[in-house]
Amino acid sequence: MSISLGELATRFDCELDGDPEVTVDRVSTLGNAGPTALSFFSNARLKEQLSSTRAAVVVLRPGDAADCPTAKLLHDDPYAAYARIAAVIHPPPEVRAGIHASAVVDASATVAASAQIDANAVIAERSVIGERVYVGPGSVVGPDCAIGDDGRLLANVTLARSVRIGQRGLIHPGVVIGSDGFGNAMTKDGWVKVPQLGGVTIGDDVEIGANSTIDCGALDDTVIEDGVRMDNQVMVAHNVRVGAHTALAAMVGIAGSTVIGKRCMLAGKAGTVGHITICDDVTVLGRGTVSKDITEPGVYGAGFTVEKARDWNRQAARFRRLGTLFDRVKRLEKDKQ
Amino acid sequence: MSISLGELATRFDCELDGDPEVTVDRVSTLGNAGPTALSFFSNARLKEQLSSTRAAVVVLRPGDAADCPTAKLLHDDPYAAYARIAAVIHPPPEVRAGIHASAVVDASATVAASAQIDANAVIAERSVIGERVYVGPGSVVGPDCAIGDDGRLLANVTLARSVRIGQRGLIHPGVVIGSDGFGNAMTKDGWVKVPQLGGVTIGDDVEIGANSTIDCGALDDTVIEDGVRMDNQVMVAHNVRVGAHTALAAMVGIAGSTVIGKRCMLAGKAGTVGHITICDDVTVLGRGTVSKDITEPGVYGAGFTVEKARDWNRQAARFRRLGTLFDRVKRLEKDKQ
Amino acid sequence: MSISLGELATRFDCELDGDPEVTVDRVSTLGNAGPTALSFFSNARLKEQLSSTRAAVVVLRPGDAADCPTAKLLHDDPYAAYARIAAVIHPPPEVRAGIHASAVVDASATVAASAQIDANAVIAERSVIGERVYVGPGSVVGPDCAIGDDGRLLANVTLARSVRIGQRGLIHPGVVIGSDGFGNAMTKDGWVKVPQLGGVTIGDDVEIGANSTIDCGALDDTVIEDGVRMDNQVMVAHNVRVGAHTALAAMVGIAGSTVIGKRCMLAGKAGTVGHITICDDVTVLGRGTVSKDITEPGVYGAGFTVEKARDWNRQAARFRRLGTLFDRVKRLEKDKQ
Repeated sequence: MSISLGELATRFDCELDGDPEVTVDRVSTLGNAGPTALSFFSNARLKEQLSSTRAAVVVLRPGDAADCPTAKLLHDDPYAAYARIAAVIHPPPEVRAGIHASAVVDASATVAASAQIDANAVIAERSVIGERVYVGPGSVVGPDCAIGDDGRLLANVTLARSVRIGQRGLIHPGVVIGSDGFGNAMTKDGWVKVPQLGGVTIGDDVEIGANSTIDCGALDDTVIEDGVRMDNQVMVAHNVRVGAHTALAAMVGIAGSTVIGKRCMLAGKAGTVGHITICDDVTVLGRGTVSKDITEPGVYGAGFTVEKARDWNRQAARFRRLGTLFDRVKRLEKDKQ
Repeated sequence: MSISLGELATRFDCELDGDPEVTVDRVSTLGNAGPTALSFFSNARLKEQLSSTRAAVVVLRPGDAADCPTAKLLHDDPYAAYARIAAVIHPPPEVRAGIHASAVVDASATVAASAQIDANAVIAERSVIGERVYVGPGSVVGPDCAIGDDGRLLANVTLARSVRIGQRGLIHPGVVIGSDGFGNAMTKDGWVKVPQLGGVTIGDDVEIGANSTIDCGALDDTVIEDGVRMDNQVMVAHNVRVGAHTALAAMVGIAGSTVIGKRCMLAGKAGTVGHITICDDVTVLGRGTVSKDITEPGVYGAGFTVEKARDWNRQAARFRRLGTLFDRVKRLEKDKQ
Repeated sequence: MSISLGELATRFDCELDGDPEVTVDRVSTLGNAGPTALSFFSNARLKEQLSSTRAAVVVLRPGDAADCPTAKLLHDDPYAAYARIAAVIHPPPEVRAGIHASAVVDASATVAASAQIDANAVIAERSVIGERVYVGPGSVVGPDCAIGDDGRLLANVTLARSVRIGQRGLIHPGVVIGSDGFGNAMTKDGWVKVPQLGGVTIGDDVEIGANSTIDCGALDDTVIEDGVRMDNQVMVAHNVRVGAHTALAAMVGIAGSTVIGKRCMLAGKAGTVGHITICDDVTVLGRGTVSKDITEPGVYGAGFTVEKARDWNRQAARFRRLGTLFDRVKRLEKDKQ
């Protein structure tokens, strides 16, 4: 939609340096922006693009204003201000109230009149769909689920059963929530399945990336607190608790019964063992494995990054000979005496 | 369902210390158990919860009986006994025989009268659906598949084609079985696809976790033997064989043509290269990479776990200077002579 | 289908040593081949199977002809020649033009008359489906997508929105393309979602493995060039560019805005951080993490493979004592002076 710079300044608490009557109708990168586009600048590496941008207006920090050849919206956190403005200029698709003729809704389910149940979606027994919720094509909401107001389940999502999602949840395609946890008792005749009977409780303002999986609890619930963000292909096992505003990047795996604090960030492919606790405000670097409790906020990591295979192989060979090196040093020390 | 302690003792081979007429109707954790709940105790860390539990009865080892304030069902393997009891008290949802009006079943397919084909499921040409099988909403059974008696495919499962599953298979949402293996021949004009023509053969009592993928064989079948358990987001490539009662935890990846023995356990994010053989009774620790044959049962691993990034970086810097350290020790040894 | 050796020799540029009138109607491994099967030999480890094969004909290098007891089709690249022949003998299922009665196609979508939209598939607003395209059961093509001629989306695929796929694309079950990238701005009130407004552009002859995910760009498009091959459970983040004929093996993860060159190969579970560039013709070994630009073609890697856990633990303990070892060597050097 089209909006004037004056209105943007007022609504998003920016200082405007430019004509308040000018309107923008899209957002764009600095490099590709046309004359009706709004852009933003927050990364010093893009200074050259800033200086030559043809955007109508750029959101940036007051200190960067001098480098900007066009109108400016000044804000101390230009990326967050841009994010909020972009959501107004490009709102998500409107929810069109109603149940598609091809959708299958159980007679015992409750669907708000303002909700949209799209083509070939399925809503099972006793589930409750809130106001303005969107359930996308091919999505399956199993029995005893509840989706809070303004939630969006995009295409081919599965809520297996007993999944409760708070308000404004955004669940991307292919996500599976509430599937059985991995509980098995070994016996002399092989594995005996341990029934997985808990549910999943998800707070408000949670976003879950494509093809991620969150298992139900074994007896009590798996819990995802408010404001959590998960990228694609994340795996959360049974009885995990993920604290508010924690972000899990793609391919992160959290093993069973682990508790992660608030405002943590686990980078891509990081993971944890089960039954541990990570305190608030912990960052785990990419592919890091957390194997025991973390009780102090901070940045944690381990792991090597690639080099030429020939060079790595040489290093690895030295690593394998570390025992002999310790022996040789010991001998030198002994000889010295 | 409701069941008496007396009947539980008889059916599950436990010794009862308590009133056989008392009934339970649910299972619960020790901490949350109410007066009609059965719980279990097998983890010494929960001793405090045991001593204060309000469960009607607790399944535990004879040696732990003294710490339990309530009725007891004594068994040498309380976790396995609990698992079996829980499956009786909380049976999986009943299969309601019939084909949902919205399901699409090819005329050449065979569906047992006792099977349930749920909303928007699709059964393709020549596939055979056994007795009491459940095919969940949105699931697709491609051509030439067979699902043995009492199998359950939950929502949005895909069997691509030529997948044979034994009895009592449990396939969680989003699983894909029988998709093409990754076979490509490099030429000067780019990759040429190698047609993937085999199928997948899965034994009895196999469970496969949400969003896992198992590729078809290139020519012969990919094989999953009886009693295998896979967690979520596991990847099994073409022509792999996974031995009976082996467990693959979440995000494990098995590359093509690898053979894994019986009763192995691969922990989360572990993986193997292709074309190797792992013998029976091997455990691979989390994130371990198996790069060659393993011929001896036991526990295998490699990898570092996170520490403060500052500390890790110091260690990694030392690692990179290992070559110089070897040189310095060599010089010291030489000087000594 | 059945085809004569003479025709195969002509069409696939092989030299035939055998009766040109003999026909084959299937392909097979050397070991399982029957009298109407064609097989191939390119792996010296299978020489024994070659010498005892009962195949009608074997595709192999001229230099291996002497070891083959049956008719031969000689070619310098027998694996590629086999791949092309197998695609003729076992063509993919025929596309049956038409829209299944259970499919839901928006009135504003354009579907070629020769395309097949299978059961319970959904085609949304303004999407364009090319000639002879197959959209499999349960697949969802969101708004503003385009699928080029001869494309195949197998079952339960999701194109979220604004996904353009070139000709002959092959998208396996459970794949999600065009889902939101992971863009979030941290504020004192928690994460603010950054709208993801770009699309995904995919070239010709691209194959994408089961349950892989490719996110849309934040503003511009995520780009997959011609001839790229992705295995299962691959993750490509927003604004990535993958160069032509590059292959990404299973569980590879590419973080945002990274550019990968042409003809690269990333082995299983490899990954990259975001915002880096990898030049053409780079191979990354399994589970390798690329953390900075690679500007020189070659093979790159890092990482340890499993050994007995007891042995590994000893090595890891030595690693942790590296600091003390450096100190001890320093002291020895000092004492020497």
